[in-house]
Amino acid sequence: MSRNVAKRKRIYLKEKPAEKIGAEHFELREEDVPEPKVGEVLVKGLYISLDAAMRAWMQGRTYRSEVDAGVVMPGLLLGEVIESRDPSLPEGALVEGDMGWQDYAVVPARSLMRRKAMKPLTHLLSAYGITGRTAYFGMMDIGRPKPGDVVLVSAAAGAVGSLAAQMARMAGATVVGIAGSDKKCAYLTETLKLDAAVSHRDKRFFAALQEACPNGIDLYFDNVGGEVLEAALFLMNERGRVVCCGAVSQYDAAPGPTPGPRGIPGLLVVKRLEMRGFIVMDYAARLAEADGRVASWIAEKKLAVPEDIVEGIEKTPQALIGLLHGENIGKRIVKI
Amino acid sequence: MSRNVAKRKRIYLKEKPAEKIGAEHFELREEDVPEPKVGEVLVKGLYISLDAAMRAWMQGRTYRSEVDAGVVMPGLLLGEVIESRDPSLPEGALVEGDMGWQDYAVVPARSLMRRKAMKPLTHLLSAYGITGRTAYFGMMDIGRPKPGDVVLVSAAAGAVGSLAAQMARMAGATVVGIAGSDKKCAYLTETLKLDAAVSHRDKRFFAALQEACPNGIDLYFDNVGGEVLEAALFLMNERGRVVCCGAVSQYDAAPGPTPGPRGIPGLLVVKRLEMRGFIVMDYAARLAEADGRVASWIAEKKLAVPEDIVEGIEKTPQALIGLLHGENIGKRIVKI
Repeated sequence: MSRNVAKRKRIYLKEKPAEKIGAEHFELREEDVPEPKVGEVLVKGLYISLDAAMRAWMQGRTYRSEVDAGVVMPGLLLGEVIESRDPSLPEGALVEGDMGWQDYAVVPARSLMRRKAMKPLTHLLSAYGITGRTAYFGMMDIGRPKPGDVVLVSAAAGAVGSLAAQMARMAGATVVGIAGSDKKCAYLTETLKLDAAVSHRDKRFFAALQEACPNGIDLYFDNVGGEVLEAALFLMNERGRVVCCGAVSQYDAAPGPTPGPRGIPGLLVVKRLEMRGFIVMDYAARLAEADGRVASWIAEKKLAVPEDIVEGIEKTPQALIGLLHGENIGKRIVKI
Repeated sequence: MSRNVAKRKRIYLKEKPAEKIGAEHFELREEDVPEPKVGEVLVKGLYISLDAAMRAWMQGRTYRSEVDAGVVMPGLLLGEVIESRDPSLPEGALVEGDMGWQDYAVVPARSLMRRKAMKPLTHLLSAYGITGRTAYFGMMDIGRPKPGDVVLVSAAAGAVGSLAAQMARMAGATVVGIAGSDKKCAYLTETLKLDAAVSHRDKRFFAALQEACPNGIDLYFDNVGGEVLEAALFLMNERGRVVCCGAVSQYDAAPGPTPGPRGIPGLLVVKRLEMRGFIVMDYAARLAEADGRVASWIAEKKLAVPEDIVEGIEKTPQALIGLLHGENIGKRIVKI
């Protein structure tokens, strides 16, 4: 037994937020590291993946069961096996799994997925993780942009949006991004080479969006829901399609769904629109396809993979809160 | 010139309703019948087709231009050519067109579609009109129910809903109808043989709907929007589909779209739902297919075509108002 670690840091969800989430809802505890039992491994955490949907987990059942107070905050962790009592996962294996916010995790080996090391390692949680795969299947399988389409992407400077927008651009579409600041908008047009970008915090947001889409919108990749979705619906062209990927504008609020955008279902009928939701887990059988395409695009320097790395496990709660406030450009990851 | 008519009755939209529509918004005027010019015909009106969407035409642009005050109320009229100055339409021809609410119309021949007489003639406006074709393409082309699916249809005692629900039943689905009274619900289960029916006026509507759909809903054919759509979304099964055919709950109100149902887009994402709107005009090239299938079903006594005939052109405003209040079972038609 080569390990030399007795204590670990674990971040608990102390209390579920009634409305806005804050640092007070979390608690860092130092606890003893238990011995792994037969079939279990001890994993040293390297990186924690942060996603806006984690806030939605606290609101109720989503694509996973609701997260209740009193548990280590769940979430995807990439780490290294440093002690093993299961022959399938030797010491030194790189693994990912829903191990939650902790620097050392003792978990059943069968709950983990083994991953191959790459440079940078963080790409396993961005380009080749839920983020990249969500962007790929959402845009390429559900959205299917055609050359000449006008594609609108919200949260376009975010983890999924930044990749999805670039994929639409590669497909020959005119791509307009929505983000939450002028700095992000500049990033979208200057670095990611989108055709236009609009800030949803602009007081004349709707007019600005209309100006950015003079020929209407053929495909809207929606990460946010709410008023931005409503604005897009009013600007959609006939037979347009809406890919429902997320609803981040709705997550940091009291539990329970809020009213939907105006114009549903009237605008859907009159404009013959299609809205479709999806969850990346449904594509489990096709992950290699997504990873392969993404790898080619990265190798050809056609796809930039923005990442936003926060250092220190104790900063994880604030990093999630900041993510919900739109601090990040690209995939936010905590380096433990 | 064989005609013997000097005056005609025309019903004008005197004023656009600010909120609820009433008889005061219409005006019946007696006017001289003009001589048809070259290329025009004089049509004696036989039947006026009434549709809830006519109220939406007064709210703004829909699939047709907005209807403004001061014009003869538009709408589909079935009639007979009694005087012709166009060789393509001889006297005696049966024609339909957007001639509006009048007993004699002088219109360009090219604006009319010739129809073949049948018994009953009213079926040209129901089974073989916009109604039957909307039900057919909406249910069979967009909805595509499979044997074993649970299909929910709102306004199921209405013109389109009653046909769409029966088509789903013929496809082998379990069909639940929503209507606005116990009498209509009894009609749905007893006469149309639906598996269950629920009144949206039931105080415990959501619970009743849940009881009627213990295995959830796979396909929802939505004619109404609003709270009924919201209830259906909460009961949809994963990968369920919503056919957006109309939004009658929204029509008799002030112009401008109202908030959408709660849960959009959140429920669409989590349950991977698809919502799709359509307009029957898009199927112009396939009308013969719809009419042929409907004719077979009627001949085989598999499809009942409920009609609700109101007599007297002067009753047309009240007939539309009553339709919006849900008075009718099946297609409401005014016999002139």
